[in-house]
Amino acid sequence: MTTIQDVARHAAVSVSTVSNVLNGRADRMRPETLARVEATIEALRFSPSRLARQLKTGQTPLLGLLVPSMANPMYGYIAREIETCAQEKFGHRLLLGSTYRDRAKESAFFEDLLAHGVRRVIVISSLADERHFESAVERGMVVVSYDRGATPGQRSKVGHVMPDNFEAARMATRHLVDKGHRRLAFATVAGMTMSRGAKIAGFHAAAEAAGLRAKARVLDGGPLNEYGDSVIAEVGRAMALQIAGLRQPPTGIVALNDLMAIGLMAGLRDAGLRVPEDISIVGIDGLFLSALSNPMLTTVALPVRDMARAMVEGAIRPPAEASAADGDKVFAPLQLIERESVAPPPAASRATAGTIRTKAKPKTGRGRTAP
Amino acid sequence: MTTIQDVARHAAVSVSTVSNVLNGRADRMRPETLARVEATIEALRFSPSRLARQLKTGQTPLLGLLVPSMANPMYGYIAREIETCAQEKFGHRLLLGSTYRDRAKESAFFEDLLAHGVRRVIVISSLADERHFESAVERGMVVVSYDRGATPGQRSKVGHVMPDNFEAARMATRHLVDKGHRRLAFATVAGMTMSRGAKIAGFHAAAEAAGLRAKARVLDGGPLNEYGDSVIAEVGRAMALQIAGLRQPPTGIVALNDLMAIGLMAGLRDAGLRVPEDISIVGIDGLFLSALSNPMLTTVALPVRDMARAMVEGAIRPPAEASAADGDKVFAPLQLIERESVAPPPAASRATAGTIRTKAKPKTGRGRTAP
Repeated sequence: MTTIQDVARHAAVSVSTVSNVLNGRADRMRPETLARVEATIEALRFSPSRLARQLKTGQTPLLGLLVPSMANPMYGYIAREIETCAQEKFGHRLLLGSTYRDRAKESAFFEDLLAHGVRRVIVISSLADERHFESAVERGMVVVSYDRGATPGQRSKVGHVMPDNFEAARMATRHLVDKGHRRLAFATVAGMTMSRGAKIAGFHAAAEAAGLRAKARVLDGGPLNEYGDSVIAEVGRAMALQIAGLRQPPTGIVALNDLMAIGLMAGLRDAGLRVPEDISIVGIDGLFLSALSNPMLTTVALPVRDMARAMVEGAIRPPAEASAADGDKVFAPLQLIERESVAPPPAASRATAGTIRTKAKPKTGRGRTAP
Repeated sequence: MTTIQDVARHAAVSVSTVSNVLNGRADRMRPETLARVEATIEALRFSPSRLARQLKTGQTPLLGLLVPSMANPMYGYIAREIETCAQEKFGHRLLLGSTYRDRAKESAFFEDLLAHGVRRVIVISSLADERHFESAVERGMVVVSYDRGATPGQRSKVGHVMPDNFEAARMATRHLVDKGHRRLAFATVAGMTMSRGAKIAGFHAAAEAAGLRAKARVLDGGPLNEYGDSVIAEVGRAMALQIAGLRQPPTGIVALNDLMAIGLMAGLRDAGLRVPEDISIVGIDGLFLSALSNPMLTTVALPVRDMARAMVEGAIRPPAEASAADGDKVFAPLQLIERESVAPPPAASRATAGTIRTKAKPKTGRGRTAP
């Protein structure tokens, strides 16, 4: 869709000049400028009726975007796709907030959006409780929530867009089973969100289908600190040391997401274990960083661009249309990207229940880690 | 500084309720609520005079933030620090835009900010030309620019905050020299920004001080694509293949930033070269990812939190104060974090001008790389 910004750019004038033309305030304008703007409006087939609000106020409409932390590269990736779609297709700018999955911060952000007249918001939260989102909808907002569905059994006024988290974890786990792994683990952090629950269920489903239910366990690396998601890699790193100390460590691990997988690989290396020779790792996300790790991470890539478009379209549709409950939008297809972090399990684990032998001394001197 | 949000949170009421109390619109309020808000205002020593605009309009003031791409983890890191400071200290929200270092997109963003009455903006751009920023200042905006200084010889109305890029590259280069490296390279991308120029100058200064000017070269990995900064790692990766093909490749490389260094390491591994045994790498930034790579990256960490605070304070100070040219604010100290990616050069390069022998077969099958 052509926006007023497109017209301004093509005509090499300011947005307010285009607005003046559209509103008949062209009396003080140079004739060449007026002619150029009018020609551009026609050439681009710009339909100002669609953007009545923008023309009335002279303002680009705003879309609220709430993320747990901008410092998490996965949210940066999703935010970029949301921004690109919101701006290029709908002429909206983003009003952004990080909330570290804190309910009070989320509510405060909604208050601020309302005070600014912003009634469309995309939230990436995954908090178990979304009553504060429902109450925002009752006050006239259009809310689209990422990575969680409606509370089961309840009719929701909030839009929900998410990847097929169950299938993502099932696919990752089945890949390990196919490579011969019998001792499986799913690595997560403390706190149960809906998406984490779905992934754990997918992990168990794949293990059970392979007759490995008893050998599949969920490892909880503990809580995230105040900066939340940017340190999920550090949680993975710390968890790896515990894994290395187990009497019968898993030989194949599915990580909650790519960043955690990258942290796990660093931690296993700290502990003198090799990926994939000793332990195989599969991530979930398809973050660009997963192609840069050593070994390069095998991961299940999510359809981020499609989901971003669905979120933007869901948030920008007319409120009347939005108030009808749409049900959850679950996105597939997912894509298993095979790289280097998965191999058959070590021979010892296939034959007996022997422990993995540490091949090298634990590393020290990691240096001061920047935040 | 206490904000109206703090008062609302502590009193467990909405921001608009606090605003109503402050503006004498409490006639329809329950007496207990009024009493609680008044007590909270006193307990927190909230001074409404500082936030006259917010109280008048009921809106949290907005701060514009322009970044090249949110998908670049370094900008996510800086943006998080800016947001934290802007919100916790000054009660401002962020209106965010990614511009992929495109001048037209930057100008369009300024237009939108003005239309929304937003007059404070932090820009991370590094474009060589900042006349469009100067013109925004003339229209009443307070602009603080990151990672570049004023155009030499010109008096600027734009605030400038940057790390000591010259010293960062000099420090990184000297570290390689101290480890015995003689064939040095600085790895960059196409396009000269002020910060890239300063880093290259620092690289040459360190090489010259060691009598190695003739052996120090700048390698240009080519242009970034439309998504700009998130793919700087891919530019580094591609450049590594060229480096591996050189008759006399450098033994020590300073990368433009950590993401490029991470890409270089992945590419050298693709080419069958080992870091640090064959080639040593030093990054610049101190991104959290640099502690997670394999080998862990030696890097020069920038004082990101201090710079973020200076940018926010510079943008939020009163316009009258801001119009006085402050000169550039160059931030130190920098910190060299020694990890694993630097070692003495291979014996062959120390003795003669022999080429590096490839120790392993080039890797293939990187998989499909997610964006």
